[in-house]
Formats: sequence, C-alpha cells, structure tokens
Amino acid sequence: MKRPNMYDFLAKPLNGPEIESRSFAIIDEEAPAHDFTPAQWQVVRRMIHTVGDFSIMERVRFSPEAITSAVQALRAAKTIYADSNMIRAGISQARLQKVHSGYGSGSIVCYVNDGEVAREARQSNLPRSLLAVQKARPLLDGAIVLFGNAPVALLEMNRLVIEEGIRPALVVAMPVGFVHVLESKEEVTTTGVPYIVLEGRRGGSPLAVSVIHALCSLAEAGQEEGKER
Amino acid sequence: MKRPNMYDFLAKPLNGPEIESRSFAIIDEEAPAHDFTPAQWQVVRRMIHTVGDFSIMERVRFSPEAITSAVQALRAAKTIYADSNMIRAGISQARLQKVHSGYGSGSIVCYVNDGEVAREARQSNLPRSLLAVQKARPLLDGAIVLFGNAPVALLEMNRLVIEEGIRPALVVAMPVGFVHVLESKEEVTTTGVPYIVLEGRRGGSPLAVSVIHALCSLAEAGQEEGKER
Repeated sequence: MKRPNMYDFLAKPLNGPEIESRSFAIIDEEAPAHDFTPAQWQVVRRMIHTVGDFSIMERVRFSPEAITSAVQALRAAKTIYADSNMIRAGISQARLQKVHSGYGSGSIVCYVNDGEVAREARQSNLPRSLLAVQKARPLLDGAIVLFGNAPVALLEMNRLVIEEGIRPALVVAMPVGFVHVLESKEEVTTTGVPYIVLEGRRGGSPLAVSVIHALCSLAEAGQEEGKER
Repeated sequence: MKRPNMYDFLAKPLNGPEIESRSFAIIDEEAPAHDFTPAQWQVVRRMIHTVGDFSIMERVRFSPEAITSAVQALRAAKTIYADSNMIRAGISQARLQKVHSGYGSGSIVCYVNDGEVAREARQSNLPRSLLAVQKARPLLDGAIVLFGNAPVALLEMNRLVIEEGIRPALVVAMPVGFVHVLESKEEVTTTGVPYIVLEGRRGGSPLAVSVIHALCSLAEAGQEEGKER
C-alpha cells in the first residue's frame, strides 16, 4: 500500500493562514516584474492566488482612485452588490466585520435568484442577471459592485452609470465567457467610475471575492494611503 | 453622452440559455483538436465556458469509468460533498432535480463552516478543510466528492481511499494554488477511484460546479452510454 501524501503534510503541518502566507511568498518570488503599486499588488497577488495562474496579471487594470474609493466604502460599511450567489457565499463576513462591525448577513446583496426577478425574466425573455441589477438600482449608488459572472449585468450597470448618473464606489468587472464579455469590460473603463477590470474573456466569482478580501486587508491595515499611482 | 452597449444587446436580446448555447457554439468552433470522447467533451467544454480560457483543456484527465460512475450516482441521488460553500451555492438544485427528484437542499454537504470543525481546527492548528473531510467520512462512500479549493482536504480524501477503503463514485480534483496542490492531484490518479482531475496549479469552485452541471446534462440525456473510451 502506497503511503499517503497526507503524512508529508502532517510531518510539517500548516494551518489555513500559514498556507495562505506561504502561497503569497511563493507568488512574490515567482512573479515576473510589474509596475503595480504596493496596494494594487496586494489585490493582484490575491487574484493570482485564487486562480493559481500568473498570466492574469497582464490583464488587470485599476482606475487611479479605485483602491482609495473602495477602502473608504468598506470603512463606511457600504452595501456590496454581487452578480452571483457564489460571490455572496465566498465573501468572508469575518473579514468584512474586521473593517466595520456594521457589516452583517444583509450587507451583501444578490438578486439573481429573487422570485420577482425570475418572473420578470420569464415574461421579458431577458437574463435574470440583468433584471437583478435593475432591481438593485436603489442600492447601487456608493456601493461596491461585483461582477464575476454575468456580462449582461455589467452592461446594465454601465448603462445606469452613463444614463442615470448612478455612481458606485467601485465596479469590479470580472465577468467571464464568450458573449458580450469584452465589450462590457471595455465600457466600464469609459464611464468614469472607479474600477478594477480583468480584461479579456477570463473572470469568475472567486476573482471578485479575492478582490474584496484584498481590499478588506488594505482597509484594515490602512495600507492604501499614499500608495496609489 | 456615449450610447451604452446595452442597446446593442437589447437590439438582439438573448435569454440565459441562449447565451449559454451561443457560448458553447463559439467554444466548439474555436477549440483546438483534441481526443476527448463526446461525453468527456461536454464536461471539458463547460469547464472552458466557466473560466473563459481554452488552455485548461490540455490539463484535464478522466479515469475511464469516471463519467459512467458519476452519472449512475446522480441517477441514484447520491450525496455530493463539496470542499467550499461557493460550490454549494453554485450548484443548481434545478439541474440536480431534473436528474432525480430526490435531490434537495440537504443533498450537497460542506462542513468547512461547521462549528465543531472550527473548534477542532483551533485545537489542532490544522486547516478546517481537512477536518471537514474527516467529519464527512460517513457520507463519502458512493458520493460525488468535489474539490475546487483545498488541496489538504483532497490529501485527506486520498488517505481515506488508500488506508480506509472509502470509495466515492467520483472525485473531482480541482483544488487551486501553490502549496500541496500538485501532489494532491497526482495522488488521486493512483488511488483507483473514478476521477476527473485538472492537473497543475489551476482549479477553483466554478470549475467543480461546471463538472457537476455537465454530468447532470449527460445523466438527463442518457448521453454517457457507450461513449466512454
């Protein structure tokens, strides 16, 4: 019988936070040269950690005020809107509450499985993700808005910014896929809102979660100040 | 004021399922040559759809009986164990219930946020994901077991297979990251259990979810039969 690899782990056991810091050390060591600011790198490094792949770092774009604006919003316990329930499940309440004790289970909103949204989607034959953003409209001003899934939801967010003057504290634009994804991401960068975008087809809910967790660490540590470009 | 891209979408609107089938058509068109069976390709194609990236297809490995075994398990409404709550949030109950009406909210189990597991993790200084698999031990025989996050959980799963004779219907081995990931995935392929592995550092909860959803489609359509290697 082969000896399980688990015994190698148990010979030098690590807890969850230790595995995370060892992972970050490996990423720092292996990462190619880049010109992210220290605060931006904390975000990008956690994104790399989340997908196990350095190649995404070439495609991450920050608007100049993105981190400062997001950290201010987190410190004011602003609403977080997510385009998927996977994002809601992935965000750590404990991390949010370290930034502001006012964060609770109702602070992260996702309407994609909302009954009213489902009914409207059937009636209109439009994606639920789009109707979910429309339902969230009253919450979006000043909020941190996360797209890790649905490009059409991001298109609607962009429309609300362009036409209706909604101004989120940050748009995290990381929807994934093959239809309407590229143009939804390109458009974000033209609307004037603070953004963090992963260009191209790649994206995903864990990336959106990793951005929020990195921003929480920055907000907790006060590390965002004076380190933006 | 720039005209929002949303109006291009609304000029030729698509609902969610239409966006999905158009995405699959684009993937079929752009994908390089491969030697997956038709059933395996349905799984790999949905994985590509989930990450927006073709490069993962070189790293997906199926054991010969993987799809048949998983489809049988789904048709018998076997338990699904997940190493993250993001996976649990991402799996569609509706898709499961199309395969077997016995699937319900208790059918997908994840113990990583369990109170007992958290207490044991503090006492032992080991990762919660590992202790969560230990707690799940009585459920794992015959189950579909999904790893999209925690390599140490997969190491413990492998140990249970090797040392204690636990035999899941399928192990989906897609933990992600930089510490213990490669050896956890390599080990799965030596244990004799049915597996679908994404080799290398990449992985993630959405990939594990995409595998289950593809298997549901195969189980519903009866497409797995006679199409395995």
